[in-house]
Amino acid sequence: MKLPSTVMENAVNSFARLPGIGKKTALRLVLHMMKQDKDVVQGFSESMLRLKDSIHYCVKCHNISEAELCSICSSGSRNKQLICVVAGLRDLLAIENTQQYNGTYHIIGGVISPVEGIGPEALQIDSLLNRLKNEDVNELIMALNPTIEGDTTSFYIAGQVKRSHPEMKISTIARGVAFGGDLEYTDEITLARSLAARLPYRINKEDEW
Amino acid sequence: MKLPSTVMENAVNSFARLPGIGKKTALRLVLHMMKQDKDVVQGFSESMLRLKDSIHYCVKCHNISEAELCSICSSGSRNKQLICVVAGLRDLLAIENTQQYNGTYHIIGGVISPVEGIGPEALQIDSLLNRLKNEDVNELIMALNPTIEGDTTSFYIAGQVKRSHPEMKISTIARGVAFGGDLEYTDEITLARSLAARLPYRINKEDEW
Repeated sequence: MKLPSTVMENAVNSFARLPGIGKKTALRLVLHMMKQDKDVVQGFSESMLRLKDSIHYCVKCHNISEAELCSICSSGSRNKQLICVVAGLRDLLAIENTQQYNGTYHIIGGVISPVEGIGPEALQIDSLLNRLKNEDVNELIMALNPTIEGDTTSFYIAGQVKRSHPEMKISTIARGVAFGGDLEYTDEITLARSLAARLPYRINKEDEW
Repeated sequence: MKLPSTVMENAVNSFARLPGIGKKTALRLVLHMMKQDKDVVQGFSESMLRLKDSIHYCVKCHNISEAELCSICSSGSRNKQLICVVAGLRDLLAIENTQQYNGTYHIIGGVISPVEGIGPEALQIDSLLNRLKNEDVNELIMALNPTIEGDTTSFYIAGQVKRSHPEMKISTIARGVAFGGDLEYTDEITLARSLAARLPYRINKEDEW
């Protein structure tokens, strides 16, 4: 598509380089931008620049942070003895959104995937082992995606941790049928796992498990 | 969703204000941006700013332009006696992409739509009538969307033009079944119109119509 202005073409190309945005969507966004007031566009532009200038990663858990330690690692009200291992920031945000978890995190930055050429050395596993050495941690929760790659990575990390910290409690988030799900359409692996990992039925909160 | 950094939150909100982009997509775009080199982000940011600074509208046809006249209006090789009336820039680009049209355009900026509160005075119809007065035009092609609003707008413009220029040739782009379409699934209005507006079948290019 030939555009009537090179400035506009540059803007369309800038948008079209973003993931999931094609040329037509990019053009729609640029036309939208052009209709906005100048200060809106300036604000947009500046918020992008500031992204690169003032955002860093937490030296402990690799969460995004504006200071050396992220808000979770520096918080006084979080349980520092509990580390939840997640693949990326979006998983951390998903768990934070439940408002049910009060420990800290460790973002390893992905999962082991031979197909994509990602080995364990590309992940933040060494820094996790270092944290276990230097901090007083008593449980590690593996919260990686329930896929082959996620399971492989959990298995690898658990092996490494057990070697240096044989007493460490390692758990993994529960697998089973999702809330609101439909047994009829649940895949066999999930259904078989949720049968094998069945829980005692509690009528009252106080009941014994 | 609570983000770990206000800078990041600003960037996500900036993206989420764009049409068709929700919070989750915005977060994905921001995370992508953060992974880019600084000069890529700077380039993106600058191309947005330049949009507002150096893009204007052609004083004649309201196409986007970096100068007073757009590249089409100032071109020596276009037929200035032919004006194609379109609703917006995207329609202009679609017609330009066919590479079959050699006249000029007039962007009216929308269609008459009482539901959305857009009356004829909100469109660039007066400036079209002015062009007809001052320029040597002999045909007006109405190329608005084939909808109720588009047809209403064409009808209104044609009436205005005929009042001041009774001799003006006014045409409209052909309606009918689309190339590659399926008669079975074509709606009744389109099919009835394409029957009523049937054309003589040409075996050779030289055949009489």
